[in-house]
Amino acid sequence: MNILIINGPNLNLLGVREKSVYGDTSFEAYLEQLRSRYPNIAFSYYQSNVEGEIINKLHEVGFSYDGIVMNAGAYTHTSIAIADAIAAINTPVVEVHISNVYKREEYRQTSLMAKNCKGVIAGFGMESYRLAVESFV
Amino acid sequence: MNILIINGPNLNLLGVREKSVYGDTSFEAYLEQLRSRYPNIAFSYYQSNVEGEIINKLHEVGFSYDGIVMNAGAYTHTSIAIADAIAAINTPVVEVHISNVYKREEYRQTSLMAKNCKGVIAGFGMESYRLAVESFV
Amino acid sequence: MNILIINGPNLNLLGVREKSVYGDTSFEAYLEQLRSRYPNIAFSYYQSNVEGEIINKLHEVGFSYDGIVMNAGAYTHTSIAIADAIAAINTPVVEVHISNVYKREEYRQTSLMAKNCKGVIAGFGMESYRLAVESFV
Amino acid sequence: MNILIINGPNLNLLGVREKSVYGDTSFEAYLEQLRSRYPNIAFSYYQSNVEGEIINKLHEVGFSYDGIVMNAGAYTHTSIAIADAIAAINTPVVEVHISNVYKREEYRQTSLMAKNCKGVIAGFGMESYRLAVESFV
Amino acid sequence: MNILIINGPNLNLLGVREKSVYGDTSFEAYLEQLRSRYPNIAFSYYQSNVEGEIINKLHEVGFSYDGIVMNAGAYTHTSIAIADAIAAINTPVVEVHISNVYKREEYRQTSLMAKNCKGVIAGFGMESYRLAVESFV
Amino acid sequence: MNILIINGPNLNLLGVREKSVYGDTSFEAYLEQLRSRYPNIAFSYYQSNVEGEIINKLHEVGFSYDGIVMNAGAYTHTSIAIADAIAAINTPVVEVHISNVYKREEYRQTSLMAKNCKGVIAGFGMESYRLAVESFV
Amino acid sequence: MNILIINGPNLNLLGVREKSVYGDTSFEAYLEQLRSRYPNIAFSYYQSNVEGEIINKLHEVGFSYDGIVMNAGAYTHTSIAIADAIAAINTPVVEVHISNVYKREEYRQTSLMAKNCKGVIAGFGMESYRLAVESFV
Amino acid sequence: MNILIINGPNLNLLGVREKSVYGDTSFEAYLEQLRSRYPNIAFSYYQSNVEGEIINKLHEVGFSYDGIVMNAGAYTHTSIAIADAIAAINTPVVEVHISNVYKREEYRQTSLMAKNCKGVIAGFGMESYRLAVESFV
Amino acid sequence: MNILIINGPNLNLLGVREKSVYGDTSFEAYLEQLRSRYPNIAFSYYQSNVEGEIINKLHEVGFSYDGIVMNAGAYTHTSIAIADAIAAINTPVVEVHISNVYKREEYRQTSLMAKNCKGVIAGFGMESYRLAVESFV
Amino acid sequence: MNILIINGPNLNLLGVREKSVYGDTSFEAYLEQLRSRYPNIAFSYYQSNVEGEIINKLHEVGFSYDGIVMNAGAYTHTSIAIADAIAAINTPVVEVHISNVYKREEYRQTSLMAKNCKGVIAGFGMESYRLAVESFV
Amino acid sequence: MNILIINGPNLNLLGVREKSVYGDTSFEAYLEQLRSRYPNIAFSYYQSNVEGEIINKLHEVGFSYDGIVMNAGAYTHTSIAIADAIAAINTPVVEVHISNVYKREEYRQTSLMAKNCKGVIAGFGMESYRLAVESFV
Amino acid sequence: MNILIINGPNLNLLGVREKSVYGDTSFEAYLEQLRSRYPNIAFSYYQSNVEGEIINKLHEVGFSYDGIVMNAGAYTHTSIAIADAIAAINTPVVEVHISNVYKREEYRQTSLMAKNCKGVIAGFGMESYRLAVESFV
Repeated sequence: MNILIINGPNLNLLGVREKSVYGDTSFEAYLEQLRSRYPNIAFSYYQSNVEGEIINKLHEVGFSYDGIVMNAGAYTHTSIAIADAIAAINTPVVEVHISNVYKREEYRQTSLMAKNCKGVIAGFGMESYRLAVESFV
Repeated sequence: MNILIINGPNLNLLGVREKSVYGDTSFEAYLEQLRSRYPNIAFSYYQSNVEGEIINKLHEVGFSYDGIVMNAGAYTHTSIAIADAIAAINTPVVEVHISNVYKREEYRQTSLMAKNCKGVIAGFGMESYRLAVESFV
Repeated sequence: MNILIINGPNLNLLGVREKSVYGDTSFEAYLEQLRSRYPNIAFSYYQSNVEGEIINKLHEVGFSYDGIVMNAGAYTHTSIAIADAIAAINTPVVEVHISNVYKREEYRQTSLMAKNCKGVIAGFGMESYRLAVESFV
Repeated sequence: MNILIINGPNLNLLGVREKSVYGDTSFEAYLEQLRSRYPNIAFSYYQSNVEGEIINKLHEVGFSYDGIVMNAGAYTHTSIAIADAIAAINTPVVEVHISNVYKREEYRQTSLMAKNCKGVIAGFGMESYRLAVESFV
Repeated sequence: MNILIINGPNLNLLGVREKSVYGDTSFEAYLEQLRSRYPNIAFSYYQSNVEGEIINKLHEVGFSYDGIVMNAGAYTHTSIAIADAIAAINTPVVEVHISNVYKREEYRQTSLMAKNCKGVIAGFGMESYRLAVESFV
Repeated sequence: MNILIINGPNLNLLGVREKSVYGDTSFEAYLEQLRSRYPNIAFSYYQSNVEGEIINKLHEVGFSYDGIVMNAGAYTHTSIAIADAIAAINTPVVEVHISNVYKREEYRQTSLMAKNCKGVIAGFGMESYRLAVESFV
Repeated sequence: MNILIINGPNLNLLGVREKSVYGDTSFEAYLEQLRSRYPNIAFSYYQSNVEGEIINKLHEVGFSYDGIVMNAGAYTHTSIAIADAIAAINTPVVEVHISNVYKREEYRQTSLMAKNCKGVIAGFGMESYRLAVESFV
Repeated sequence: MNILIINGPNLNLLGVREKSVYGDTSFEAYLEQLRSRYPNIAFSYYQSNVEGEIINKLHEVGFSYDGIVMNAGAYTHTSIAIADAIAAINTPVVEVHISNVYKREEYRQTSLMAKNCKGVIAGFGMESYRLAVESFV
Repeated sequence: MNILIINGPNLNLLGVREKSVYGDTSFEAYLEQLRSRYPNIAFSYYQSNVEGEIINKLHEVGFSYDGIVMNAGAYTHTSIAIADAIAAINTPVVEVHISNVYKREEYRQTSLMAKNCKGVIAGFGMESYRLAVESFV
Repeated sequence: MNILIINGPNLNLLGVREKSVYGDTSFEAYLEQLRSRYPNIAFSYYQSNVEGEIINKLHEVGFSYDGIVMNAGAYTHTSIAIADAIAAINTPVVEVHISNVYKREEYRQTSLMAKNCKGVIAGFGMESYRLAVESFV
Repeated sequence: MNILIINGPNLNLLGVREKSVYGDTSFEAYLEQLRSRYPNIAFSYYQSNVEGEIINKLHEVGFSYDGIVMNAGAYTHTSIAIADAIAAINTPVVEVHISNVYKREEYRQTSLMAKNCKGVIAGFGMESYRLAVESFV
Repeated sequence: MNILIINGPNLNLLGVREKSVYGDTSFEAYLEQLRSRYPNIAFSYYQSNVEGEIINKLHEVGFSYDGIVMNAGAYTHTSIAIADAIAAINTPVVEVHISNVYKREEYRQTSLMAKNCKGVIAGFGMESYRLAVESFV
């Protein structure tokens, strides 16, 4: 089973900055935990701050992978283009957020892509990614 | 570990009506599956169509249980009173939805209570409940 | 032919209070008139001020009765839960209002449940109920 | 007893076009049914696609007829001028709609004229007209 | 002189929870203070989390009591039905709030029932109830 | 000096209906007063309930007359087409209203055509027309 | 006959600044023209940039004068207090504007005080004041 | 091949007025150019300032012609009735605008009828009509 | 104990004008009643129609008085500057209104300063001031 | 004559995915048809999913080419930056859409860049591109 | 070179109150620093809490000074009259704010006067004034 | 002292295009002036049209530089991602705009990133950059 995890803008700083919001685990460390917990899943990981490159990646794997777990960061709220890309591919996408976005600014409570995703998981810290993986099992 | 699952208005019809939206499993049948999968968790279940009775139940268990999984149905979008009850208790609440509410009417995309919950899980069918339980493990 | 008439919040005061708006006939007296005019119809009557109890009643009769005439009062404008209940049952529901709601406050001009009903009749005083019954004949 | 039925724009195509929405009875055929059912009522019928001509007709009969049943079609939602004409005349007007407008586009859910009418009946197909006539009996 | 005090949803937790917002006096203790301060007033007290039961209570005492002091909690902002009940009864109602609602979330700054009340008192802690009682003296 | 006075929908009923709002002078009677007061002005008068016919009339006289006084009635608030016609012609148009529209429904407080007119005069009863004529002297 | 003309903020610069918008006549010069044209009217004139002083002036003359012509300038759009003062006095007030405010910024198209005035005259340059005087004759 | 071109309100002034916006070609002259360029197409032309007459014309040809090119002018933004007529007929309609409406007032950027048309072409001057004709070839 | 009562614009007319809304007691007369009822409180009184002078007064007493009772009249709804002044001083301010503002125009239902006040009391006629004084006792 | 065709995000999937919406022709195949139909035009083609790269391309050719045909896909509705780039260059740009965007989600009906383009063509399938090319001939 | 610095409502309390927001320097002390840093500039200083007096001052110096630095405080967000005064004078005005208004309440993020100013500087504490002075050098 | 200046989309055309808005100095030329005026500051310069690359650059220097001066161009109004990047880094950012954005389209008056910046400077032409640099001195 192939699963790609995509992290959007600023999430390369996970575990390094704003630890009070996002915790102090780097995503790479967390990924290792996931890999040992789900030994039968082949995880790929992709991070980019460029909206269009995320679209390129969705096109690249979106007709062959079994699942995509995506935290699109700020693009969640502004990118119709990524939302269109999710609708165009075959692989189901689960939208995740580390923090409970409903406690934050109002503009973080609108997701342009949720309607094209399989489902949404928000607010469980890093565990949001694991729950998304769990949904594919 | 004590977990209460609360279902709000009309969810007593699960598995009986509107199967195209909500599937054909009755919640009681699904609950049995959960119980066998998580033998170490003591599950309670409560369903009511009355907003105030759901508040009563939250008050009743909200200072002693380890977790509450709640699908408040239509009250998700209209009840400030239930949202206040969640804020007033100690037990963390996870908001779940069976369907992907972001694909439905606009008024189903606003949750008054999400900001007071630990997290939100939506769109995975009955599995949304299991993923919520997972988040407490 | 079985028809249930449901009256929502405050409509238990019909004929007793605010006669200038709602007239001075008690609903029970009016019901007798309906029964003599339509001797072949078995009328039931239910009134409650509790949103959730109205949902319970809709569930109870909504798979066996031939028609429901409902004046949901103020819940017309606020209850997604009752609207969902109407959508979930089989019996057709006709929404009625005694007064011409379009002459009143703006928030009384929005019905959350109309889209799930067979039709809407408003403004004919007590006769609104009879016209609704007529629509089932 | 004199009753005028007014049909607004595009309703001359009734029974000819968009049968899935409006049914396959021409209005003329339906009018015959009404006439035989209510032999004591003198029915007149007027259809126009021109907003101002409908106003002219309302002025013409609005001080002598006993009732007007009006389906103003799309002008229901845009014509303050027709609404003013209804307010200016003496004959009571009942607003009718064939389809359940509350299931359709949002702009079809606002009626500029309802507040000047005796009442509103919507969603009963051609029977909406009969229920309106019934309200005058 | 008969005065009923009504507390709406979650206010049964007064003095027990969220003390930083609502203080640490239970309402029962506070009621005793009121009773000794106003020995000539017969105080009744009613609390419910169920919107419809509050309506029932308003109907029950609303034609015989001299005054009602009501803190409708979250229903202040969502219940047209309670607002209608206040309009339907004879006893004047004073709306009170413990906290200064104008310092809180925007949705707490709209009262659907204020326009049907004699007056509004907000922000004085438990003393808001006493000031309301004063207004009846 | 040639001046055309245009009255829009329902203003043919002036002096006949709704006297409490519009007074009991017919426009024809008022026109005689204007003619004797301003003997050097050649007054024409046009009334129509049809939006497009008002446009036709504006085109017809709008390149030769010295002034147009127009009370477009309800079309003031809905007709971009009349507003465009005013912009397209050379003759200056003064918008008048008999009643003080700012005391009436909110939708009567928006004029789509005012920005294309020379000026606006509202609230002086029939005298609004005379003040408009004065503005051309 | 006593008439007071009030000019609000920045109108002391009339004829001095922004001549392309407001013309090059000082208001004092224009006032002389008015006085010779209406020899039977005793005109007073008041200008202030201070909202509260305009209210003071309205109180001072508002129970004895026959008419007030007021160009409240920018306060037209922001001052509920002046609007309340107009409602509180007996002397009728006519609101005037030199420019056609409907051609300008959207916030200049809302008048908080128009509903309390006898009428509104806008867009005729300095002549707006004369037309207002005419309305009192 | 039969194509009808419909021009709505004020477009009879094309080439005569507002040349800076609409150019100086009369529509009749332009029509001749179209006829010589597309000798195999039988062009009809209809212009009216009356909304209802445009509906009449759409009904008349809308079940037999091959295509309709319509510039509904200001009715584009206000007429639900014309939009309904387009939906009711069989002949495909192409909406055209001479000017780039997106550079103009905001209310000119909403088309009520575009969703019922085959497509929209705007901003190419008179050439917009030709491009619409091209789309039928 | 020093308490200042501030009345804003137009409240100098209390008891003189608009008696149906505000009663027929002049504020000075009412003040005498307050003084005899609360002999231990030193009352000062200030009224101004000028927004900035009210700010000056708040600065002057706002670091030495025990309480301020303020009816800011129309400035309640428009003055961020007064609201800022209340936030800047030490003396607690209670906002009062004579009439039930929630029954009046919508713009009278927004208070810019309430969030900076200790509390709000509205709708009890002149007694609103006394209840405010009570809150300081 | 040099014409550049730019396709924005996800349009690289044309003819491969979502054929029911966009048809089954790849853009490359369609481009060949255009080239043979317009042998005198030198067509260039550019596709990118990256907003900023589209801006780079507009800068690169926007001072030397004769025309640009651009389908900016989802960026049409979100990119002020591309709109600014169109305004900054000399070459005229025609905005095209394959589908009739007015039939789709509301957010697809706003174009941030249309006001800076020569014109807009939407709804003709692949033919939209050809009609745009026609507009340059 | 003559520069006037104007401070609006409540800014007379600078350095005395709310030090956490505005710092603890009195404006007079800061002004001395400015004077020594820019010995060639003649600084005047004016503070008022009265909107109309600020307008008077702008008129007084606005045709002779070289620059005005204005922190209009709360009037920034509510005073069209001051904005009009800035537009009416010749001297360029620079709008300054001590705090970063974009971090504060939403109503502090709208400036009615910015569009009439030379520029805006916000968020640099007292240094905002110096940067404004710098812009005139 | 290290200061980075970032220019966003289309600002590479400064001095080349739209000179009436942005002046005719290329940014490189202006940068030379800055360097000679502030010899003790090490200036770096970065320009990109790609949103994500600007984020990359902010991450790269945002933990070591002393200050960043950023004109994000159109991304100012649309990019939550850049705003998040500013919040995530340590180096203070000053937002600058060459033109007075408050005089331009409404959508240019909202800055998503201002609340995360140290301050904002707008409207001083190229000098806006210098004033920003001055704020770091």
